[in-house]
Amino acid sequence: MALVCTGTELTAGRTVDTNAARLAQALAPLGARIVFHVTVGDDRAAIADAVRLACARARVVIVSGGLGPTRDDLTRDVLAAVSGRPLVLHRPSLERIAERLAARLGPGVPVPENNRLQALVPRGSEVLPNPAGTAAGFALRLRGAWIVALPGVPRELDAMVEQDVLPWLRRKKLARRATRARALTLFGIPESVADDAIGRLGVPLDGLEIALTVDEGAVKIILSSSAGDRGAARRADVLHCALRRRFGNAMASPEGLPLAEAVARTLIRRRRTVALAESCTGGLVARKLAAVPGISASFLEAVVAYANRSKIRRLGVPPALIRRHGAVSAEVATAMARGIARTAGADLGVAVTGIAGPGGGTAEKPVGLVWFGVCARGRARAESRRFRGDRREVQERAAMTALDLLRRAIP
Amino acid sequence: MALVCTGTELTAGRTVDTNAARLAQALAPLGARIVFHVTVGDDRAAIADAVRLACARARVVIVSGGLGPTRDDLTRDVLAAVSGRPLVLHRPSLERIAERLAARLGPGVPVPENNRLQALVPRGSEVLPNPAGTAAGFALRLRGAWIVALPGVPRELDAMVEQDVLPWLRRKKLARRATRARALTLFGIPESVADDAIGRLGVPLDGLEIALTVDEGAVKIILSSSAGDRGAARRADVLHCALRRRFGNAMASPEGLPLAEAVARTLIRRRRTVALAESCTGGLVARKLAAVPGISASFLEAVVAYANRSKIRRLGVPPALIRRHGAVSAEVATAMARGIARTAGADLGVAVTGIAGPGGGTAEKPVGLVWFGVCARGRARAESRRFRGDRREVQERAAMTALDLLRRAIP
Repeated sequence: MALVCTGTELTAGRTVDTNAARLAQALAPLGARIVFHVTVGDDRAAIADAVRLACARARVVIVSGGLGPTRDDLTRDVLAAVSGRPLVLHRPSLERIAERLAARLGPGVPVPENNRLQALVPRGSEVLPNPAGTAAGFALRLRGAWIVALPGVPRELDAMVEQDVLPWLRRKKLARRATRARALTLFGIPESVADDAIGRLGVPLDGLEIALTVDEGAVKIILSSSAGDRGAARRADVLHCALRRRFGNAMASPEGLPLAEAVARTLIRRRRTVALAESCTGGLVARKLAAVPGISASFLEAVVAYANRSKIRRLGVPPALIRRHGAVSAEVATAMARGIARTAGADLGVAVTGIAGPGGGTAEKPVGLVWFGVCARGRARAESRRFRGDRREVQERAAMTALDLLRRAIP
Repeated sequence: MALVCTGTELTAGRTVDTNAARLAQALAPLGARIVFHVTVGDDRAAIADAVRLACARARVVIVSGGLGPTRDDLTRDVLAAVSGRPLVLHRPSLERIAERLAARLGPGVPVPENNRLQALVPRGSEVLPNPAGTAAGFALRLRGAWIVALPGVPRELDAMVEQDVLPWLRRKKLARRATRARALTLFGIPESVADDAIGRLGVPLDGLEIALTVDEGAVKIILSSSAGDRGAARRADVLHCALRRRFGNAMASPEGLPLAEAVARTLIRRRRTVALAESCTGGLVARKLAAVPGISASFLEAVVAYANRSKIRRLGVPPALIRRHGAVSAEVATAMARGIARTAGADLGVAVTGIAGPGGGTAEKPVGLVWFGVCARGRARAESRRFRGDRREVQERAAMTALDLLRRAIP
């Protein structure tokens, strides 16, 4: 399957294209894969070129965008020209447009000329009604491929894909049955090591599609097999199991969840409570946990203790400890973790104190040095890491490491 | 300019491609426009095909992704094959890779074979060092076009574009001279209103390129004029001034800074201190402030008070107030703001309490309702907003609104 996205707002970078990803996800269960995706601005020649290229590379080409009522909506015209078919009025679409506009502008208002244009389709097209907007979609044969023209407005596109396009693809027998996928998330393992391991586990990989992605420092591995290929499905299960054995506790989620979500779900399922004491991460660990729905039962509170006074008064860190060892130290990290767990009345306390930079580093305590404290059931301990990168990167990596240490400590 | 994005995570819809939009934005000030953008999966033939198509359509082709160390990283191989040049080892890159890995894995660990591959480039390439990762980029001539291969990791891509690609394009005279740009940031003004206003201010716009982008709910307006066009530069200044008058205090930054950075800089410049009390935003306001370098002198602490117990004990909110009005109320927001300012000893206290969803809403207090408290010089007041969207969107909008209220309150 190929995808042509049109719109100068996309090529100029004013809008991030989320349609392509949602289309791919909606089509994946039908075994449809995007093999070619091209984006061009609102330009007749560029759209025609893109459509021709896509037709030569896939049996089904989805063209998204350019069906609106304005002068830079060119898809209808271009497809008529490329296919050599005149545009003809589709009466039911015109009636639907009139109805929608009447509901919005009041009854009796005539349909403006530019909205009338939205009821035009190249002759011989199959019309796909748009349940969420005025622009109708349509499908037509072109050079041995099916072209499916859909609006670019995400809400309308989603509604049409669900209600029109997927059933249409099945009716036309253009889509296979669904693929089956297993996923897992590793943390603290470089992508290259994970990739290397897959080849060395001795599991035959035929019929498996293996994808690795890195998101916020966690490696997600997705093992896909075609629906009906039982052998490949079994190999995916065996590989999943072998990876789990190989990486042990570095497997942050056997379902491929993001780390924060995996941690949150474990806390909720085991009914454990946690509180956080953050210094250099400035609330980022809290933010990642708080983004997961339902976490409020487990996540009691966080103190972002930037100032030493805050560490002392909110968390009960002895001032002498800070004087003797400095705020970035094993001793203070441990005291912060113990302090937040105690003062919050939480099962678990996690503390982060480090030097995010760009200033504040010394030879002994360089930028990127971060101490973590973890307190579980009243027992606290500390670990350190040295992160590279700029302030944001150090903060991001430290926050993810804090979540991982929390994950490993949940009783 | 053309863009080839590679990665099965993109074509499969597992990752939304944000690189294309950021690249287009970074290149726009050089007068470079993306005329053709194609995305293909990790497949040799598809990448080669895409590169050939792009070469025929632009003088400069940026290929993003596929420079990593794993088996699905194919860009290096494909470009070598398409250009008919063997891959050769680039020693300085190998040394840089060894250094980076030593910093991460400890000294003396040999560079793994797959990371060594990242130091290979097609013979005759110009190497573009990667300041943020192991994969080096490179540029080579192909069929009359320049191919510039860059990593797909957004952080690495951004760093390379800024430090290597833009200067390289200028050196090669592949980009026009930098244009002169003025920027400003509005908060609380819809993009369409801002856009509409620009046309109605009576300022002639000839010679000006005007771009509006929306980032985290703030509208950034960039007014560009060609270097040397003094008339247009003057019109940009006049328009900037007129917009400032038109939008008054909704102008969050007359320099086009992101809202959090504008707030942080004002706090630092005026030597004011702030402390935060967050409930439904879960640390997001703190995180946004803490991301700005140098903020630690102004940002004393934050309490993420999810539990009512935390609001009572950490912030001194009277339990009766929560019982009578509920945690999401003007009264509690005011008490939280006053409490955090007092207990932290800060000039300013900002509080956020609301219902981020998906659960927890009622008819009277629906999901999306958020109360904000602001305390400045001991005087506290509250405001509410009703945000639409899912949990993340509500949290994001609430956090930005909190920053904006803080900005307006800084004495």
